[in-house]
Amino acid sequence: MAFDGKNYREKISNSKLNKLIFLLIIFSFQLIFLLPGLAQTKFTPEKLDLMPYPEKVELKDGQFRLNEKFYVGGEADSSSRVFKAVTRFMFRLAGRTGLFFEQDFLADQQPKAQTSFFYHFDRPGQLIPNEDESYRLEISPEKIELQATTDLGVIHGLETLLQLLSADSQGYYFPCIHIVDRPRFTWRGLLIDSCRHFLPLEVIKRNLLAMSVVKLNVLHWHLSEDQGFRVESKTFPKLHQLGSDGFYYTQDQIKEIIQLASDLGIRVVPEFDIPGHSTSWFVAYPEYASGPGPYRLERKFGISSPVFNPTEEKTYKFFDRFIKEMASLFPDPYFHLGGDEVDPKQWKENPQIQKFMKEHNLANESALQAYFNLRILKILSKYHKKMIGWDEIYQPNLPKDIVIQSWRGTQALIDGAQKGYQGILSNGYYIDLYESAEKHYLNDPIPVNSPLSAEQKKLILGGEATMWSELVSPETIDARIWPRTAAIAERLWSPQEIRDVNDMYRRLSIISLQLEETGLTHLKNQPMMLRRLAQSYQIKSLEILARISEPVKGYGRHSQGKVYTSLAPLTRFVDACFAESLEARNFKKLVEKFIKDRDLRQAEEIKNWLNLWINNHEEICQLAAKSPVLKEIVPLSEKLVNLSQMGIEAVELLLFNTKADPSWLQIKLKELEEARKPQAECQLAILPAIELLLNNINK
Amino acid sequence: MAFDGKNYREKISNSKLNKLIFLLIIFSFQLIFLLPGLAQTKFTPEKLDLMPYPEKVELKDGQFRLNEKFYVGGEADSSSRVFKAVTRFMFRLAGRTGLFFEQDFLADQQPKAQTSFFYHFDRPGQLIPNEDESYRLEISPEKIELQATTDLGVIHGLETLLQLLSADSQGYYFPCIHIVDRPRFTWRGLLIDSCRHFLPLEVIKRNLLAMSVVKLNVLHWHLSEDQGFRVESKTFPKLHQLGSDGFYYTQDQIKEIIQLASDLGIRVVPEFDIPGHSTSWFVAYPEYASGPGPYRLERKFGISSPVFNPTEEKTYKFFDRFIKEMASLFPDPYFHLGGDEVDPKQWKENPQIQKFMKEHNLANESALQAYFNLRILKILSKYHKKMIGWDEIYQPNLPKDIVIQSWRGTQALIDGAQKGYQGILSNGYYIDLYESAEKHYLNDPIPVNSPLSAEQKKLILGGEATMWSELVSPETIDARIWPRTAAIAERLWSPQEIRDVNDMYRRLSIISLQLEETGLTHLKNQPMMLRRLAQSYQIKSLEILARISEPVKGYGRHSQGKVYTSLAPLTRFVDACFAESLEARNFKKLVEKFIKDRDLRQAEEIKNWLNLWINNHEEICQLAAKSPVLKEIVPLSEKLVNLSQMGIEAVELLLFNTKADPSWLQIKLKELEEARKPQAECQLAILPAIELLLNNINK
Repeated sequence: MAFDGKNYREKISNSKLNKLIFLLIIFSFQLIFLLPGLAQTKFTPEKLDLMPYPEKVELKDGQFRLNEKFYVGGEADSSSRVFKAVTRFMFRLAGRTGLFFEQDFLADQQPKAQTSFFYHFDRPGQLIPNEDESYRLEISPEKIELQATTDLGVIHGLETLLQLLSADSQGYYFPCIHIVDRPRFTWRGLLIDSCRHFLPLEVIKRNLLAMSVVKLNVLHWHLSEDQGFRVESKTFPKLHQLGSDGFYYTQDQIKEIIQLASDLGIRVVPEFDIPGHSTSWFVAYPEYASGPGPYRLERKFGISSPVFNPTEEKTYKFFDRFIKEMASLFPDPYFHLGGDEVDPKQWKENPQIQKFMKEHNLANESALQAYFNLRILKILSKYHKKMIGWDEIYQPNLPKDIVIQSWRGTQALIDGAQKGYQGILSNGYYIDLYESAEKHYLNDPIPVNSPLSAEQKKLILGGEATMWSELVSPETIDARIWPRTAAIAERLWSPQEIRDVNDMYRRLSIISLQLEETGLTHLKNQPMMLRRLAQSYQIKSLEILARISEPVKGYGRHSQGKVYTSLAPLTRFVDACFAESLEARNFKKLVEKFIKDRDLRQAEEIKNWLNLWINNHEEICQLAAKSPVLKEIVPLSEKLVNLSQMGIEAVELLLFNTKADPSWLQIKLKELEEARKPQAECQLAILPAIELLLNNINK
Repeated sequence: MAFDGKNYREKISNSKLNKLIFLLIIFSFQLIFLLPGLAQTKFTPEKLDLMPYPEKVELKDGQFRLNEKFYVGGEADSSSRVFKAVTRFMFRLAGRTGLFFEQDFLADQQPKAQTSFFYHFDRPGQLIPNEDESYRLEISPEKIELQATTDLGVIHGLETLLQLLSADSQGYYFPCIHIVDRPRFTWRGLLIDSCRHFLPLEVIKRNLLAMSVVKLNVLHWHLSEDQGFRVESKTFPKLHQLGSDGFYYTQDQIKEIIQLASDLGIRVVPEFDIPGHSTSWFVAYPEYASGPGPYRLERKFGISSPVFNPTEEKTYKFFDRFIKEMASLFPDPYFHLGGDEVDPKQWKENPQIQKFMKEHNLANESALQAYFNLRILKILSKYHKKMIGWDEIYQPNLPKDIVIQSWRGTQALIDGAQKGYQGILSNGYYIDLYESAEKHYLNDPIPVNSPLSAEQKKLILGGEATMWSELVSPETIDARIWPRTAAIAERLWSPQEIRDVNDMYRRLSIISLQLEETGLTHLKNQPMMLRRLAQSYQIKSLEILARISEPVKGYGRHSQGKVYTSLAPLTRFVDACFAESLEARNFKKLVEKFIKDRDLRQAEEIKNWLNLWINNHEEICQLAAKSPVLKEIVPLSEKLVNLSQMGIEAVELLLFNTKADPSWLQIKLKELEEARKPQAECQLAILPAIELLLNNINK
């Protein structure tokens, strides 16, 4: 039957179906308020809300009931890592339950007769790779026991215990349980780039606290770049004085971060990216560059040409003194020298460098970089540091204690491991690409089909999520890191076979809410940013639109017309949108179910959503009329209206399995392609669900 | 006519009125969404959204249009106060408008030909009382000029300029205007108590930024108390080591705060409260107390008995060294020694002290404190500091350069001024009492009927809002300070005759939203706290209840059953409620209008609100069933249901001027009194409006 969608829609809306729809609206309208993207947390332990999920969990009958007389005791000194961890734990437990604990846990955690929660560990843990981080947690109706080899294990166990907090009509409790847990990988990191945009101390602090919640244990701190040199150097003070616009961390502040990280069982690995990505150094010291100065701080992003001159001895004298200073500031055994994305331009253009390469049999610029790395490696060894760098640092004659961080992919790690080199994976964990948690979650440092031997697998130490900061500000960074990084944290901690994506999302939604407790702004800054955009408290319509909009994926935002610099505002609608729309994900699930079942109620639920988005448009227009900064989202909302309208038509066709006129369908698919084009640097995350509807018509 | 309200309600709900109501509901239902408590900000300059309001404002025709080519220039060095202020200004302007300014304002603010905004000042301002803070702002279609005697004036002018940002369908602009402005009072302060609860550095920082927005210029920093000693002392390290639970500011951090404050034109006046309120000192140094030790940090609040021994010479030797150290750390000319609420118990019980008093003709403990103060005053003078203290420090033989801070009231200030003493007012600005902005706003340091001469009036330097922190945490403090403190800021800056309360509230709502830009959490932490309470993202019902609930006023929360300590959770529903419900204020205005007009539409609007609160109850109960910490608000919501039901009955009676059975009315008024009793440490802020309705029945 030939079919014209538009007429059909008019027809059906006047049909006797109307009565049925009316009744069903009454049933289904409430579903709108269920906001499928935002799951309700559960206190019942039927499904344990743990993330990362422990290695072994044995749930038992019974409960440990919590009340004001709850008392924690161990053997820790009040200045110790564990004592502070217990204090934080108790504050958070009191914060969630509103209980006024009798114990003065701030001053006194000595065990006594009525102690209900004991912790024990054998020795303080060292902040080095392959340290023991395991713990055992035993909860019975009478008491809670947490045992670990090191205090690092106790810290992890405390987080698990907090995640077990449950409630019923009688009050709060912990379920009786036996947990034996340890990490799958020893290197579970988050890279934070403090250079492209400077991130004040509190940003680093709250993210360390959040890392600890999901058992991450390495902060990889990217501290020098073309855009800024972010550490006070007492040896070369011009570095921070001229290379930072005044935005740098003092050494005292660095120590404060290292102390907090240590308290949380987190290593701090500093990265000073050389020989490229180093314009900021040359603002202060142009004499170490390969081309003539003077230099200014780079405001734009990408690969820029200034690069260290590896052929001059004075360069290595400089680095000897610099690394000496930084090696004593940062206690970690590893020192990251970057090494990525060197633009050979300055080397090619400098005759003295070209001459040097010939004299030293350096065939090309890669060989020159290899030469530079070996020289820097010697300096690192002199100051008892091991080297870590990006893929590009790899070369055959490196010692075996180095670590290669792969931004290029798993294959590079495999190649390295087969030659005996340690590696960590970052490819697939680039959280600045606005990818889904699912994609990151399923990215395994050692895929099941890995060709590596058991011994070689041990060389894959773990991975790191990378928060490059070209397009993040202190206001937006938390929402760019969280909650998705919690999924990566689970991949790096939990057994490989834990990979149920739906259950991951269920737990992610819960942990995301709990992460707010650390001071993270990943949820609360969205409405704040929308209020600023609207210059109003009335932001409901913006929230509705933002919840199903995502920034253009990958590095696509840089090709949408605006030239981003360090000074550009990161306050627009796109910046307020989450990297991944959980609401769109749930909408797609609903559509998938409907396509399978063709259930009238599902159809109504889908249409309720679509009508919500259609009806939202008017208010968007009103806001944009008053706030010019919002003008760019009017076309985005228009696209949403179009998509929603074709969605409604498609649902009605599919519900009764009516054939559509192929030419109508073609027009709709063309409109859909039109809607796929980004607007305001955003894409509509519900588009794939609409596409699915259309693609199932006439099938 | 005798009348039974309940029956009447049933009758009326079945009457022919129904049709009318049905029609009106359609008109009025949308009003619910207007949320009268939360005004829409206006970009139109018909009513200028300035706060504090300038001394002289002359609005002109025309506009200065804003675009990417906006360029600011002045004569400031890049490390100077003004350069940094302009950088912040430009970031905020870009943040609000989304404009990608071409100027590299981070590095280069030199004037050039096309500069559109010039600033000029004659000299750097000093951070001392009575410094010139005036500025003149002239906006024409072609350019903006900001002139001031000191850079402090430029900083204030930048804030005014940002508040003038407007928009229309063409884009952003500043209205053409001529402003001449200067503060009424020179001492415009905010006291922050970092002792009862320690407040991390970022809390102080964002509040400094917020202070600057509303032109406050003194941070009075309360740094020692019974509950904690919060500053690193290098002379007496045990003070912070033993007296702080590890929660103190390092001297580097103090310097960081002083630097930021100075950049913002804000003085930092440290307070070390002696001789009482000083238990934390004695944890470290019991030998300076008047009673035998040992001492522990005080966990409870109120006045405790440990007090310095003023009769021992070693006490003054100690203070000489201590003040020497702190006088060099804090550059402000004033040094606050507290002096309030000394419990004479230890002095009375110590025979040696009693003997000393007799020997020195000290008639009573007040005289002994006066003796102590004079000795401390000498030490302060030695280190070039002037003394400031609370009312209790007053005595006739003090020098005239001291300042008395009055917590007792205006009369004390008047008495002081008449004797030639400078004073500042804090009575009436105690923002920890949960009073209304209106009350604080109308509290004038020099009331219109003041008996002081013009000369004496000059001795009243200003006032300070006081944020005592017994019941605030880093999470809640911003909402306890803001936005109400902006109203106090206006009182202290703007001409006395600016005191239109309604217009103040209108502007307060706008400035409150703009204050979020500084990182303040006063708006965004409420939903975060409600999410934690509900352990869910579904907090609509909690928001509805919280928006019309207020914490029990005054210090009433301490007598509601819970014993608060430094360790008690400040995460309950009461902590999430704002000090003042603007929604209740607007509801009362609506009720007042209705009582005057008896308009059917107003009646419907009122009933919509009341029904919203009635219908909210079910979800509150559901949340509380899952979250035990919310159980305490079920009775609160029940009270709200009762009040709302009697409100509906009252509205229906009043609408048709129907008489009510006096005994029915009596019962209702009794129920109202019942509802007045606090629940969950909260009171329902809409109660006075319901009371007003009832009180107008039968009139």
